[in-house]
Amino acid sequence: MEKGRVIVFGGDGFCGWPTSLHLSQAGYEVVIVDNFSRRRIETELGAQSLTPICTMRDRLDAWRDVTGREIELREIDVAKDFDALKDLLTAYRPIACVHFAEQRAAPYSMKSARHKIYTVNNNLNATNNILAAVVDVDPTIHLVHLGTMGVYGYGAFGSVIPEGYFKVKIPLEDGSFVDREILYPADPGSIYHMTKTQDALLFQFYAKNDRLRVTDLHQGIVWGTQTPETELDDRLMNRFDYDGDYGTVLNRFLMQASVGYPLTVHGTGGQMRAFIHIRDTVNCVRGAIESPPQPGDRVRIINQMTETHRVRELALIVQSLTGATIDYISNPRTEMEENELRVANANFHALGVPPTLLRRGLLEEVAEVAHRYRHRCDLTKIPCVSYWSAERARIARERFDRTASSRAAAV
Amino acid sequence: MEKGRVIVFGGDGFCGWPTSLHLSQAGYEVVIVDNFSRRRIETELGAQSLTPICTMRDRLDAWRDVTGREIELREIDVAKDFDALKDLLTAYRPIACVHFAEQRAAPYSMKSARHKIYTVNNNLNATNNILAAVVDVDPTIHLVHLGTMGVYGYGAFGSVIPEGYFKVKIPLEDGSFVDREILYPADPGSIYHMTKTQDALLFQFYAKNDRLRVTDLHQGIVWGTQTPETELDDRLMNRFDYDGDYGTVLNRFLMQASVGYPLTVHGTGGQMRAFIHIRDTVNCVRGAIESPPQPGDRVRIINQMTETHRVRELALIVQSLTGATIDYISNPRTEMEENELRVANANFHALGVPPTLLRRGLLEEVAEVAHRYRHRCDLTKIPCVSYWSAERARIARERFDRTASSRAAAV
Repeated sequence: MEKGRVIVFGGDGFCGWPTSLHLSQAGYEVVIVDNFSRRRIETELGAQSLTPICTMRDRLDAWRDVTGREIELREIDVAKDFDALKDLLTAYRPIACVHFAEQRAAPYSMKSARHKIYTVNNNLNATNNILAAVVDVDPTIHLVHLGTMGVYGYGAFGSVIPEGYFKVKIPLEDGSFVDREILYPADPGSIYHMTKTQDALLFQFYAKNDRLRVTDLHQGIVWGTQTPETELDDRLMNRFDYDGDYGTVLNRFLMQASVGYPLTVHGTGGQMRAFIHIRDTVNCVRGAIESPPQPGDRVRIINQMTETHRVRELALIVQSLTGATIDYISNPRTEMEENELRVANANFHALGVPPTLLRRGLLEEVAEVAHRYRHRCDLTKIPCVSYWSAERARIARERFDRTASSRAAAV
Repeated sequence: MEKGRVIVFGGDGFCGWPTSLHLSQAGYEVVIVDNFSRRRIETELGAQSLTPICTMRDRLDAWRDVTGREIELREIDVAKDFDALKDLLTAYRPIACVHFAEQRAAPYSMKSARHKIYTVNNNLNATNNILAAVVDVDPTIHLVHLGTMGVYGYGAFGSVIPEGYFKVKIPLEDGSFVDREILYPADPGSIYHMTKTQDALLFQFYAKNDRLRVTDLHQGIVWGTQTPETELDDRLMNRFDYDGDYGTVLNRFLMQASVGYPLTVHGTGGQMRAFIHIRDTVNCVRGAIESPPQPGDRVRIINQMTETHRVRELALIVQSLTGATIDYISNPRTEMEENELRVANANFHALGVPPTLLRRGLLEEVAEVAHRYRHRCDLTKIPCVSYWSAERARIARERFDRTASSRAAAV
């Protein structure tokens, strides 16, 4: 019995692909829409997924072979082709759209003016086009968007980070105060993160003006590679990025450990961040679809994360598991060296997602992914060479000049 | 003696043109950049400026004839052509850029999905492209942007609207509070206004990451047509829009009164809004250029407005001056029927701009513009036919069916 139709925008990506399989397995009729930009960027950067990933056609054939389930595919650039997008919604009339169709790497978004422009143009037009199409075709379609914990900035207010809405007291002229709940003040750390804070304003506007039903999942840094569905067949394998632009910190450490490269910690590694396993991501998206907000509700925001760690703690954990060395390098990013981070995630827990914690899943990831495919690693792609400013690039160059020979010797 | 070079993006528009002349007159070397989108939209809507406006070439020739001053012109679509934009900044190295290159009509932005998409795409890419080019070419260039009072929403917090930054108390877990100043929570009323709230996030990010110097002028509703510079020659005349999309409320009333059309008040007319005369706009932009923020400063926000009025009060004032009748029509917009509005504008006053108040300038505007050119008015273009939602359109249709014959009789 089908539960209804769901369109997954960006269904070829690191989160989109396992989400599509998970929803198909759960009984939804899934349509993947993608423009294959992630594969084109792979070519641009010359940095492949560590895991060998199949073409989308082979992936979908494999899914049919293994499960007997069909997933449809439509190649559309939703940031550019509104007409095709609207025709698609009209033809399929989904109960929900899941929106992953955004450029999702902070370093890539800061690489150059061209990359800033691409990220802003792609991400905002994709989001606005989808929202405008939903208004025109059927305002009851539930939009589930993958946001990021990065919209909050990192703990500047000294309080627990709430799920989207912040209770504050507003002073009036007569000396009294009024209690209000506002959207948490945005403090993005990159152009990529900034587009997600701009998305939030799009959602707020369309929810107010058109009574659209929107769930925004403010996700932590994803780690892990496989889900129960992608593990069913090697042709279904998910991507694993380890390069300086797309490799998220923990996956990068695991891969570095597997090839004997020092774990590269930016700055002091005092940055505290939120994490979630890809298995929990897909569960959370399904949970969001199964409990939609009502028309007229404000945007529902869920902090989709399970635990927080400092980057240097992660490096020490990986070191203790693998014996890797740690290399503290100059930070390519403009960010606080050390921060606290406490996060509320009651809405996340209410979805009933059983978390995969680091201490349980890390060794499996090392053995089954990083170690198994370490022969595919290109060492030259590991360093992050995307700098947040000319000043950051200069510092890195000077430091590299001093340490290049010792690092090369260590590998 | 030249004071330095200033590029005016959108220098062909209602605010951009008189600003360009004013800066040229004040001794700046002015370069106008425009893609002439406002003239193309005029053709699209079939709604001309009430005042006859010359081609840009004739305008610039006239300016040279009258003042001996040269203004350069470059036709560039800054939302689309980053390379040309960057080359321009590299070649001219201005001390400041004034950014008017955005689609600026709320009703136009709500007309259809296509108009929503155009507004988001144009406005955000224009702003981001300019910022990215400034970072690459010379981060000390001061960017002066025309924002809108509409980013604040209308008085939902019951306090005076500050100039951009809002003092709030944030509750901590131990029951204590910490005082913080945050960007005023955005509550835009249209896609157009929303793009300006998204611009604010771009400015905040670039000011933080790249230490760019940015002034954001949150402007009230502009009224009036001419400035001392545009009055020097009929060929320099500024545009005056009265149509349902681009005509701002007061100019629309003045024109309606001149042709004997009832003043069309949306809803109860209880909306309280902020106003400024175009003469004060150009002074304020010059004032902002002459007192730039410093690198590392937060974005400077100025509430560029001189007085507040309710829409129905404006109608009564115009009625008392002209004897016009007033027609309360169903509101095409989704907005509060009645609101309070108190606005702080100390930063504005600090620029030393002597305000032109309604009670002083209205009669002159009626006589010299609306009355003089009333023969050019196309009555069919007066009603606003851009609705904020399908529901608003339905209400308007039903009401129109009941009142169409009586309104037609009144004209």
